[in-house]
Amino acid sequence: MQSPERNGPVDIATLRDNHPEHWMRAAAVRMLAVDAVQAANSGHPGMPMGMADVATVLFSKHLKFDPKAPKWPDRDRFVLSAGHGSMLLYALLHLTGYEDMTIEQIKNFRQWGSITAGHPEYGHATGIETTTGPLGQGIATAVGMAMAEEALRARFGRRVQDHFTYVIAGDGCLMEGVSHEAIGIAGKQKLGRLVVLWDNNNISIDGEISLSDVTDQRARFKAAGWQVLACDGHDPDDIDRALTEAKSSKKPTLIDCKTHIGLGSAVQDTAKAHGSPLGAENIESLRETYGWPHAPFEIPADIAGWWKEIGARGAQVRAEWNDRVAALSEQRQKEIARVFEGTPPRRLSATIKALKKQVSDEGPKVATRKSSEMALEVINPIMPETIGGSADLTGSNNTLTAGLGIFDATNRKGRYVHYGIREHAMAAAMNGMALHGGIRPYGGTFMVFTDYARPAMRLSALMGVPTVYVMTHDSIGLGEDGPTHQPVEHLAICRATPNTWTFRPCDTVETAEAWELALTSQRTPSVLALSRQGLPTLRREHKAKNLTAQGAYVLAEAGAKRRAILIATGSEVEIAIAARELLEAEGIGTRVVSMPSMELFAAQDESYRRKVLPAGPVRVAIEAGVRAGGWDRWLLGERGREAKAGFVGMESFGASAPAPRLYEEFGITADAVVEQVKTLLG
Amino acid sequence: MQSPERNGPVDIATLRDNHPEHWMRAAAVRMLAVDAVQAANSGHPGMPMGMADVATVLFSKHLKFDPKAPKWPDRDRFVLSAGHGSMLLYALLHLTGYEDMTIEQIKNFRQWGSITAGHPEYGHATGIETTTGPLGQGIATAVGMAMAEEALRARFGRRVQDHFTYVIAGDGCLMEGVSHEAIGIAGKQKLGRLVVLWDNNNISIDGEISLSDVTDQRARFKAAGWQVLACDGHDPDDIDRALTEAKSSKKPTLIDCKTHIGLGSAVQDTAKAHGSPLGAENIESLRETYGWPHAPFEIPADIAGWWKEIGARGAQVRAEWNDRVAALSEQRQKEIARVFEGTPPRRLSATIKALKKQVSDEGPKVATRKSSEMALEVINPIMPETIGGSADLTGSNNTLTAGLGIFDATNRKGRYVHYGIREHAMAAAMNGMALHGGIRPYGGTFMVFTDYARPAMRLSALMGVPTVYVMTHDSIGLGEDGPTHQPVEHLAICRATPNTWTFRPCDTVETAEAWELALTSQRTPSVLALSRQGLPTLRREHKAKNLTAQGAYVLAEAGAKRRAILIATGSEVEIAIAARELLEAEGIGTRVVSMPSMELFAAQDESYRRKVLPAGPVRVAIEAGVRAGGWDRWLLGERGREAKAGFVGMESFGASAPAPRLYEEFGITADAVVEQVKTLLG
Repeated sequence: MQSPERNGPVDIATLRDNHPEHWMRAAAVRMLAVDAVQAANSGHPGMPMGMADVATVLFSKHLKFDPKAPKWPDRDRFVLSAGHGSMLLYALLHLTGYEDMTIEQIKNFRQWGSITAGHPEYGHATGIETTTGPLGQGIATAVGMAMAEEALRARFGRRVQDHFTYVIAGDGCLMEGVSHEAIGIAGKQKLGRLVVLWDNNNISIDGEISLSDVTDQRARFKAAGWQVLACDGHDPDDIDRALTEAKSSKKPTLIDCKTHIGLGSAVQDTAKAHGSPLGAENIESLRETYGWPHAPFEIPADIAGWWKEIGARGAQVRAEWNDRVAALSEQRQKEIARVFEGTPPRRLSATIKALKKQVSDEGPKVATRKSSEMALEVINPIMPETIGGSADLTGSNNTLTAGLGIFDATNRKGRYVHYGIREHAMAAAMNGMALHGGIRPYGGTFMVFTDYARPAMRLSALMGVPTVYVMTHDSIGLGEDGPTHQPVEHLAICRATPNTWTFRPCDTVETAEAWELALTSQRTPSVLALSRQGLPTLRREHKAKNLTAQGAYVLAEAGAKRRAILIATGSEVEIAIAARELLEAEGIGTRVVSMPSMELFAAQDESYRRKVLPAGPVRVAIEAGVRAGGWDRWLLGERGREAKAGFVGMESFGASAPAPRLYEEFGITADAVVEQVKTLLG
Repeated sequence: MQSPERNGPVDIATLRDNHPEHWMRAAAVRMLAVDAVQAANSGHPGMPMGMADVATVLFSKHLKFDPKAPKWPDRDRFVLSAGHGSMLLYALLHLTGYEDMTIEQIKNFRQWGSITAGHPEYGHATGIETTTGPLGQGIATAVGMAMAEEALRARFGRRVQDHFTYVIAGDGCLMEGVSHEAIGIAGKQKLGRLVVLWDNNNISIDGEISLSDVTDQRARFKAAGWQVLACDGHDPDDIDRALTEAKSSKKPTLIDCKTHIGLGSAVQDTAKAHGSPLGAENIESLRETYGWPHAPFEIPADIAGWWKEIGARGAQVRAEWNDRVAALSEQRQKEIARVFEGTPPRRLSATIKALKKQVSDEGPKVATRKSSEMALEVINPIMPETIGGSADLTGSNNTLTAGLGIFDATNRKGRYVHYGIREHAMAAAMNGMALHGGIRPYGGTFMVFTDYARPAMRLSALMGVPTVYVMTHDSIGLGEDGPTHQPVEHLAICRATPNTWTFRPCDTVETAEAWELALTSQRTPSVLALSRQGLPTLRREHKAKNLTAQGAYVLAEAGAKRRAILIATGSEVEIAIAARELLEAEGIGTRVVSMPSMELFAAQDESYRRKVLPAGPVRVAIEAGVRAGGWDRWLLGERGREAKAGFVGMESFGASAPAPRLYEEFGITADAVVEQVKTLLG
């Protein structure tokens, strides 16, 4: 392991002289970044300038990719965890020939409608493997990608899956807590195909790293079970040596790349290089320093040609892969295509229907976390692409089904991950698996710990990946563990997040339906909010149709003339049903609407919504969470003035006591609902 | 450093024989925990059984405390980061004589109305220094406590502040990401008065730690700049030796305590010991094993007496402290009392008024993050108890004012913390400083990164500590950095959280008012959501009264007959004012309500709320966030049927482009507001 002086002096002329061809190729990357940031008058030039040498060596000598087939399943994955350096990635995609990454897009960096957003956005441009920018997310997501590769290599063989995951991470990524969780998973899982290139430039936004940190990152990664290498991040030979060594490791590898932020500029090695355009004058002298006389966005033909050649090489490798896959049985090929497309097996629908029929007939009283297990028990055997797990709450989340096997370095065919007490990295790793393709990840923790996983859950939604979050113990029904463990605002949080399906099923039938929707989703993550406590089966009449898909539906119609509508979710639907009986007994006709998903209900057409929630009758919603959880829209009517309305739920944090007592004390009872209705009726 | 075999075999008889007196004293702790969990039929016996020896030595030989004065400023702080082991703490508080911790409370463990919640809840019982349970929070909070001690020792001298912070943490705490951030801060800050006792029992809920982790924790802490010691967690002499050594360190210390979860029981060294009652039969044989023939909740007089004696010793130390403080000048004594009571200086009100008057007169156009800096520039000089900071966004959050100085190991009088890229530990450390007392912490990051800080922000609210979160770049107004950095749902998240004041001021006047409220708060944390972009001063007529304290108020009255009310917050109030002008020009009388805090508005009496939002006129709210952010209540009326209503805001994630373009494209403009109003008026 070489260990050059930490950010020792650097002489550009020497760098140029030592590796003249490499220098100009990397200079093309640097100048595209510098010029694009300048044109946008916004962005981060320092990191691309510092890491262009590393990236040039990685893309030209190691990365397996084909710009003509950016979704090719066996490509290496490249994750720019330090997402603010987005121009580094855009420059590389442009130079290597990704067709959508035109020079016009580069010129429109950070402008409305361009695919060159401030931070790399998954889905905007091909070749962006994941959205990064919130620091630490990339490295944690990459851990999931590397896990997916291991799992799929075990399943389909090395001829189908045989690639690496590379990450560029900065000090910010390594300081974030999620990086600790992520490298812990990677170390435990011995993800030898994961290589993290640390942009060790000694600078963060506030100044020198030493202002805030004295961590010995190398020792830290070693402690987590990683191989640690180092290289001079501006010496292409040394970078190449380190990458070569990294690839033969049985452990994940950190490469400590000594670099200079804003290399060669007036602001080199300072925080000023980080997040602002360099300015026209500085850029002029930089052109001279670099020996790059070309106009902004102009790449001389020889250099452009070299880069295009790099991009073109992947076609051959991919053709060989195609041949290998073509030699597989047709069934095998179809299965590979199916799982990478993310299409659930045809049998899923019938399997869910059969479970629904069975539980409608038998009417078990179980917690919906147990219902979820019942669903997974029939789903996992027919969906070999699922990989489940829990953040150390396996027995509570009911996420482990028979015969899954434990995924670890000794059993890559195992389909259950003991993530440890790492909610955040679990969520990010699930994103990574889903993004990699071939895997349908789900993972569990307590609903309240969506707090820990929030940044990664937001990325699921923003990227549109169908990760499934199994969040049990979803209310004060959790009981004795008390307010730290009782979600109150968390349904609100999930519902406020765009592109997130928040399911709160009331029984096993709705839970099975929610699972079907979650596993069929292509572009939306799902949160399953599940009860700790036992709940009766309320859907006793079997219906083949997935009613949860409508978001809300009439579970029990009014007997007498309809004067009230009770709307409830999850464990409170039982209370609504009980309240309805009391009200009907007093001659007050009461409809009960079960609303397992506000998002899906909002997506129905207006006529259906009006049918379920007609204007006129008073409305009372019942949910053991805060009213701000999206209720007012349904209570007061979508245009207002629709109904007098009330809410029975939580206005404060919970408390520690047995669950039934808590429901009594917080007034979430059938009696309280009846009283509300009567008050509203006046 | 001794290093006994990892969880080598243990023989209870030998333990008893070697230290017979210690054994019985610790057995009292163990059996209280075991019996309380059994009585509650719920709880976590394994950890108290494993850590009772360590805790007994800590409390009897090292911890400086006085049960008669649980808020004594110079006590050592003890944090049970592994909060599920709450009975360990309750047993110690009971035995040492905290008056509220009666044996009846212990018998009512986890029951409604008791002070013995499932996890330690700050404010429920004296002696609970912080709420723990969400893993990792305790250790991160303790870092803040230790920082507070250093800062106050520097300010008031060693005669006033001279104590330690002790933490008991489990593997769960150490796996959580926040622990990485926290130990990074502690290592950088050289918090030699911080001692973490790691309950190294090799077990988590899912089973052996090796299922999920291979981290070498000792090496990891060393890499973060810590001293690392080890001890046999069941040998009182060895524990004492390690604690003694820890206290003379200039670095924070981790003590690796080898322990056996569920010591001596049938489930010792297994996950079964973690979270369930042991059962009557097991407890019977445990009594025999322990040599503890006493009935449940019975402590023999000699052992009870010994423990009471331990508790009583603190009175002497405290008396000496009282004498030392009494020898200080009266002014000094008053100042110490003031900052520990958390009372702002009298001058604060006048200072804020003067700033308001000045900006009302001058009418600057600045971003509210800059307004916040202007407020801090006048606040910090008169409030020496503030400690500010930022998670590596100092220049963006505008949190550093002139002359604060940087807090670090070489300058404990510095009042500004470079927290590094550690939003989560920053929030937790701020909680710790506030809990410690004597400090008013504030810290900044981007509003979107409330996601990272969420678990600690929730604890601020749950505990009721007045931490101040300075969250800048609070909407799509952030511009080019794109959707990963643009909060959309985060106002909703903060507002959905009980006991949180979410301020979104529209100009410098409101920002100053929000700061006054945040710094005067005793029991509620504040989130200041501040703009990146420049905003005009809208409050041009000086009013001494703090209008933000009412949550919402009429900023501009209708000229023509009132037919519309526009409600807006922050940067969108300017848009509301512009829309009003357009509407008035068309003869549509329009009131503009500025609503900087929904929580404070909701806390006003109904007559005031009706005065601000009378039924009748159509209402349009304008906020660059999702409608689920609490809007429906104000739009549709508190009882429904009050008004036709519309919303101009966000329905999706944002995008990367210059801010003005984003406002145009997402339709948050005066024209859009006018159109909405007209449509509603029909």
